[in-house]
Amino acid sequence: MAQRRIGLWLIGACGSVAGATCLGLSAWARGLIPTTGLVTALEAFAPLDLDGPSSFVVGGHEVRQADLLTPVWELHQRSRVFDRAVIEACRSDLEQWSRHLRRGILYRPNAALQALRDRPDVLLARHPQEAITAVQDDLRRFQDQEQLDQLLVVNAASTEPPAAWEVRQLSLTALQEALERKAELPLPASTLYAYAALEGGWPYVNLTPSLGASLPALEELARQRRVPHAGQDLKTGETLLKSVLAPLFARRHLRVLSWVGHNILGNRDGWVLNDPENKASKVKSKDALLSSLLGYKPQSLVSIEYVESLDDWKTAWDHIHFEGFFGTKMTLQFTWQGCDSLLAAPLVLDLVRLVALAQRRGEYGALPYLASFFKSPLATSLHDFAQQFALLEQWAAQQHPNPPAAAASSAAQS
Amino acid sequence: MAQRRIGLWLIGACGSVAGATCLGLSAWARGLIPTTGLVTALEAFAPLDLDGPSSFVVGGHEVRQADLLTPVWELHQRSRVFDRAVIEACRSDLEQWSRHLRRGILYRPNAALQALRDRPDVLLARHPQEAITAVQDDLRRFQDQEQLDQLLVVNAASTEPPAAWEVRQLSLTALQEALERKAELPLPASTLYAYAALEGGWPYVNLTPSLGASLPALEELARQRRVPHAGQDLKTGETLLKSVLAPLFARRHLRVLSWVGHNILGNRDGWVLNDPENKASKVKSKDALLSSLLGYKPQSLVSIEYVESLDDWKTAWDHIHFEGFFGTKMTLQFTWQGCDSLLAAPLVLDLVRLVALAQRRGEYGALPYLASFFKSPLATSLHDFAQQFALLEQWAAQQHPNPPAAAASSAAQS
Amino acid sequence: MAQRRIGLWLIGACGSVAGATCLGLSAWARGLIPTTGLVTALEAFAPLDLDGPSSFVVGGHEVRQADLLTPVWELHQRSRVFDRAVIEACRSDLEQWSRHLRRGILYRPNAALQALRDRPDVLLARHPQEAITAVQDDLRRFQDQEQLDQLLVVNAASTEPPAAWEVRQLSLTALQEALERKAELPLPASTLYAYAALEGGWPYVNLTPSLGASLPALEELARQRRVPHAGQDLKTGETLLKSVLAPLFARRHLRVLSWVGHNILGNRDGWVLNDPENKASKVKSKDALLSSLLGYKPQSLVSIEYVESLDDWKTAWDHIHFEGFFGTKMTLQFTWQGCDSLLAAPLVLDLVRLVALAQRRGEYGALPYLASFFKSPLATSLHDFAQQFALLEQWAAQQHPNPPAAAASSAAQS
Amino acid sequence: MAQRRIGLWLIGACGSVAGATCLGLSAWARGLIPTTGLVTALEAFAPLDLDGPSSFVVGGHEVRQADLLTPVWELHQRSRVFDRAVIEACRSDLEQWSRHLRRGILYRPNAALQALRDRPDVLLARHPQEAITAVQDDLRRFQDQEQLDQLLVVNAASTEPPAAWEVRQLSLTALQEALERKAELPLPASTLYAYAALEGGWPYVNLTPSLGASLPALEELARQRRVPHAGQDLKTGETLLKSVLAPLFARRHLRVLSWVGHNILGNRDGWVLNDPENKASKVKSKDALLSSLLGYKPQSLVSIEYVESLDDWKTAWDHIHFEGFFGTKMTLQFTWQGCDSLLAAPLVLDLVRLVALAQRRGEYGALPYLASFFKSPLATSLHDFAQQFALLEQWAAQQHPNPPAAAASSAAQS
Repeated sequence: MAQRRIGLWLIGACGSVAGATCLGLSAWARGLIPTTGLVTALEAFAPLDLDGPSSFVVGGHEVRQADLLTPVWELHQRSRVFDRAVIEACRSDLEQWSRHLRRGILYRPNAALQALRDRPDVLLARHPQEAITAVQDDLRRFQDQEQLDQLLVVNAASTEPPAAWEVRQLSLTALQEALERKAELPLPASTLYAYAALEGGWPYVNLTPSLGASLPALEELARQRRVPHAGQDLKTGETLLKSVLAPLFARRHLRVLSWVGHNILGNRDGWVLNDPENKASKVKSKDALLSSLLGYKPQSLVSIEYVESLDDWKTAWDHIHFEGFFGTKMTLQFTWQGCDSLLAAPLVLDLVRLVALAQRRGEYGALPYLASFFKSPLATSLHDFAQQFALLEQWAAQQHPNPPAAAASSAAQS
Repeated sequence: MAQRRIGLWLIGACGSVAGATCLGLSAWARGLIPTTGLVTALEAFAPLDLDGPSSFVVGGHEVRQADLLTPVWELHQRSRVFDRAVIEACRSDLEQWSRHLRRGILYRPNAALQALRDRPDVLLARHPQEAITAVQDDLRRFQDQEQLDQLLVVNAASTEPPAAWEVRQLSLTALQEALERKAELPLPASTLYAYAALEGGWPYVNLTPSLGASLPALEELARQRRVPHAGQDLKTGETLLKSVLAPLFARRHLRVLSWVGHNILGNRDGWVLNDPENKASKVKSKDALLSSLLGYKPQSLVSIEYVESLDDWKTAWDHIHFEGFFGTKMTLQFTWQGCDSLLAAPLVLDLVRLVALAQRRGEYGALPYLASFFKSPLATSLHDFAQQFALLEQWAAQQHPNPPAAAASSAAQS
Repeated sequence: MAQRRIGLWLIGACGSVAGATCLGLSAWARGLIPTTGLVTALEAFAPLDLDGPSSFVVGGHEVRQADLLTPVWELHQRSRVFDRAVIEACRSDLEQWSRHLRRGILYRPNAALQALRDRPDVLLARHPQEAITAVQDDLRRFQDQEQLDQLLVVNAASTEPPAAWEVRQLSLTALQEALERKAELPLPASTLYAYAALEGGWPYVNLTPSLGASLPALEELARQRRVPHAGQDLKTGETLLKSVLAPLFARRHLRVLSWVGHNILGNRDGWVLNDPENKASKVKSKDALLSSLLGYKPQSLVSIEYVESLDDWKTAWDHIHFEGFFGTKMTLQFTWQGCDSLLAAPLVLDLVRLVALAQRRGEYGALPYLASFFKSPLATSLHDFAQQFALLEQWAAQQHPNPPAAAASSAAQS
Repeated sequence: MAQRRIGLWLIGACGSVAGATCLGLSAWARGLIPTTGLVTALEAFAPLDLDGPSSFVVGGHEVRQADLLTPVWELHQRSRVFDRAVIEACRSDLEQWSRHLRRGILYRPNAALQALRDRPDVLLARHPQEAITAVQDDLRRFQDQEQLDQLLVVNAASTEPPAAWEVRQLSLTALQEALERKAELPLPASTLYAYAALEGGWPYVNLTPSLGASLPALEELARQRRVPHAGQDLKTGETLLKSVLAPLFARRHLRVLSWVGHNILGNRDGWVLNDPENKASKVKSKDALLSSLLGYKPQSLVSIEYVESLDDWKTAWDHIHFEGFFGTKMTLQFTWQGCDSLLAAPLVLDLVRLVALAQRRGEYGALPYLASFFKSPLATSLHDFAQQFALLEQWAAQQHPNPPAAAASSAAQS
């Protein structure tokens, strides 16, 4: 049997997460790096018919003048990651894939997002339908040119401000009517890309806290078109720790009085998050899970600050103040020093492999068993990392897959 | 129905864990403190027929000249815990219980343990059988005097050095023969107490890394006598965190390169652990779970140092060095500042309540579903705190309890 | 010789710094506590004619309904400091001093400061002169009643927002003309108190970042009236560490790339600082010294957040990112956990003892050799703690004191 | 005037400190790196007649099979420091200097030091005099071949165990008699090298806690031969912080109760220090200064552990427990993450530049004004970094240098 050809279309293709993902795909295919960091390389997932790294072809949208090697060299020089020899060996892959890069699309960007753009041919769409059509044209051309068996769209772009309330309430019918009459709906760009993907039958993965497909209208669309999607906001550091530590306090009946998290980072992600509007989306996503995990709302503070010298090395300090027996106050503090893009990149590969398989298995709609990957998981209210992971393992263990909703509910009972 | 009367017999009854347990029992019974820190006060355990705090009567063995209030005032003054008003209100209970204190028993103590003793009437047993008989006499008298429905023995004494290899290999028959002929077997005192309890039909709980009932001969004895027991070494701080953090690294396929843990504390526990012999038991217990949780053995170092000024405030610094995608080295550090005795005390109450219920349910032998309480859990190799806790919840949810072994194996499969 | 009687007049007399100061004064006089934390109890200051604790009589202004024991019990209960026995022993002193408490004065308070007030008789002055007259009446009455040899005014009130630029530019003549014609100048309350004190011949000490006497017009007034004053903003924790660590980096030629400081605290001070206006004063004071100490401006961030559960236990996490040889980036992080009021209180006693002596020595104007006590020291640009302290030691060593200005300039040359 | 030619002779020439020093010398001479980390590049030292980087020629002794590039590539690959381009550009210098490498000399090495050696021609001296003669032959040949104006010997070798007490007591006469009769005195190798240097008239700098020239007999020799020397044990990380933080506690009269320092590192230095004998020297040097700085002895613990994954990135966690007003216990913790060899290397260059100048100025014996560079400074009991640095600045400011002893005593009075 000929190898499947899977397209991986990255929105924000020259950002550092996307760059690290592409280099990782190439280096893994060439056997230059171990699979450390790849969840799907764990034994539990070995029996699954997941695609190998050489099955993938990359393309994407970008609003900046760059190619896939740009973020790679930047990470190498500023954050001291990757061996130069690995970059050199993978260079031709990234150059080849860079030929599939297309100008990104902006629709009513705020100042922070607008400032990122320096590619002159970026499409400033006048209304959502214009953006959707343009995106679908690009995707279709990529699929045809590369004769792809499957094509997945991944949102790796900068975080947008929180979307307007009214957008979240739209029914699919109302949304589609508005699109048809070219109404200037205040939809964020991430949702336009998501709409374009799902309507075209292409799975969509949202790595960011931007709205993307996380609204009822798009869930309805995904179900109508029988396309799976996943999101939202990769859980790579501080929030990941919250999702294992908060259950610990809950299970030991230790009362969390306050949880303060202070994040500093210096990459482009951090730069965009320095804008209060865009930061609001992230802070909400990082903060919301605590009440769910603890069963009450302790005082909590999350801050994110741009500290240029750190580049991609996100550092988080968390101070957890809790009460034990006799109301005695105790403290746990942690400091996390992780290279953000290299924590995210293997998860991107995990997600595209898992979602591609889900699509082949006939699953559709938001996939709840991918919850462990996300800060704000879709289609489930599970935030406990251990329980989320059990969900994934259970799915992996299924010989004859059921619809994902069923899998989720049975897991939630355990 | 008249309230059950449950005896709680503490070995090391005037240590700080025991003192905090007794004060907690009294204060809880009087409604002076919330149930924070008590696992069995969580909703999941509400349907169980667990004994309330006023069911318990306390007694115990001690080698030092002290009563139950001694450690309480010491903790109050040196570690600044407990409200004076609470101590005053509970004083009469602790005074009353102190009347049940009996001189402790030593058998071939090493220098560090010998140094603790200042009670002149301590029994220095010439051979194990002498110690066992004396302990059983004390227990029987307590049960009779107080007309107890159940009596549980809890080892809250100082940590002993690791036991000799040959002791761990003894069959029950060989052990009993040796006891009968008053042979001077190198059994640690904790095992003598455990033997006395189990042979007498009294459940035994081991809060420490000392050997206690954790050898095949005593497991056999427990099964013969149909008595449950639990252990070993309460998991209250650094190791508790290991048991939630190591699974995180495993699940995310992040390779732990080294895990360094540095513990400092200033209570009597710390003082005894400052002796290299005694420390060896503790370090082993704190370190062993890593390989099990990760599936490989990273470099790991655990140190424990006595720092007088900290009193009961154990402080642990852990430095976890791990490798992500592309072999990139990253770091997680945490600092835990907990009042050790107040972390342990509610768990002691949890354990006696759970084990008393288990005994009434007819369960016996080591109880594997109590794994989440211990650093070196008996009858299970599960070290993942989330999985251990699921085991406990599952047991709690059982309407018609099976023998514990069955419960454990079904959980292990999940 | 009869003992001198020194009046200590506290503005914000029922705040936690003031409360701890009063309890400390009484406990020290009664020999109940060691002198730990008191700089002037170091040997270097033994030869000086400093006033002993029993020389002091306390009074003060307050806008809240409370007495001097209120903050003491609050600290005891919420922050677990002070022995109850010490409070009981000192109770009568604090009750007696509380009789000298007078209603505070507000003048155009912002919302955060207005919210603190719950004493019904607070004087809401219509113009600065009304406030000044009222304050001076209170001070004069205190001095007469208690037959004081000296009277010092200490600002321990909540932090005000930064003062208007035009106020800082006023000449003394212009200011006095405006006062006379009852103009509604936008002077902060701290400056009205300072004016009242200095004009009345009473030394003034400013523990806070509020403007107080730190403007040219008041310096001129102090020199005219030959009264000494000191300020501003006590240096007790994070900034104190900055003032010893930044010189280290400078001397080792290690380039600080970024310095991030994150402060959390839960006392009333923290509550007021949670207001962005009031916080602005503090952040500026905590941040400004870095450039001065390093000789260049690294990226720096200082945040202060109100975390109720911490009460008086201010916790600061600082992350210092610096570059060494070959531009290699390295990191120093520290966590400071200090009881803020108990760090401040002994310094208050140091300052009143030192300023009282300075007044007797005939010194006047801002005293530069007190720089080591303050985040924003007056009359000197020295921020290096070691050098600041050398200044103080030098002053202490002088047999025949020179005018302070001369002392400062000679020290600055060294 | 022709440029001076200065020989820099490194003992342990292929260790990472020596390697980083050599690469730094070359890169600085070629203008490829800034002078960050070099104390002597600060403005205060600009007026001095210090030698530029191109004045130096390197040679050295080594017991391992390696050249100067070996540690450089190792640091680059394992610790991710240096730009490859810089190494390439400097390669020829290091290759050229490597031609001056000579086989090291061992004399009664312990197991840990013996294990390092893999160079087959290492001289295992039978008695001290044999070693001294061999070293002097090498030095003389180097000086002649390269026509050096000055030659300095720097001990950058692995840490030795503490030297025997009797060795420290020897008079110079007794020592020289013993050498002459080829007695097998238990002198550590570092002292043999030091003797060889000082007797030959070559200044000696001891970067390590090994004995070197730090004994009365060698001080006498240095004064006889009028040669300057400096030591001992570079102060680069944790101890450096102690020497600025301990004075802070002293000046604020905050009582340090305990100071725990836990160091982990993974380079060869760490490997050798993992041996308890060798570690003893280091721990003593890191610990001793506390009592001197505080005026009393708090409980203190220093541990050093070899953690392979850290390579050259030494990480230190310090926990400082101190008491403030009312005996309130507070905590300061810090974590230092520094690349050890790159912290040390510029200080090596500082020291050779300063000592070379001192020799030209006619100074001799141990140089006390270099105290700020060392954990156990010679010829002074000053440990306060700020005061130590003032000593250096004072020396630098002298137009007409006095004998160093005079400089030291005048500074000590200030």
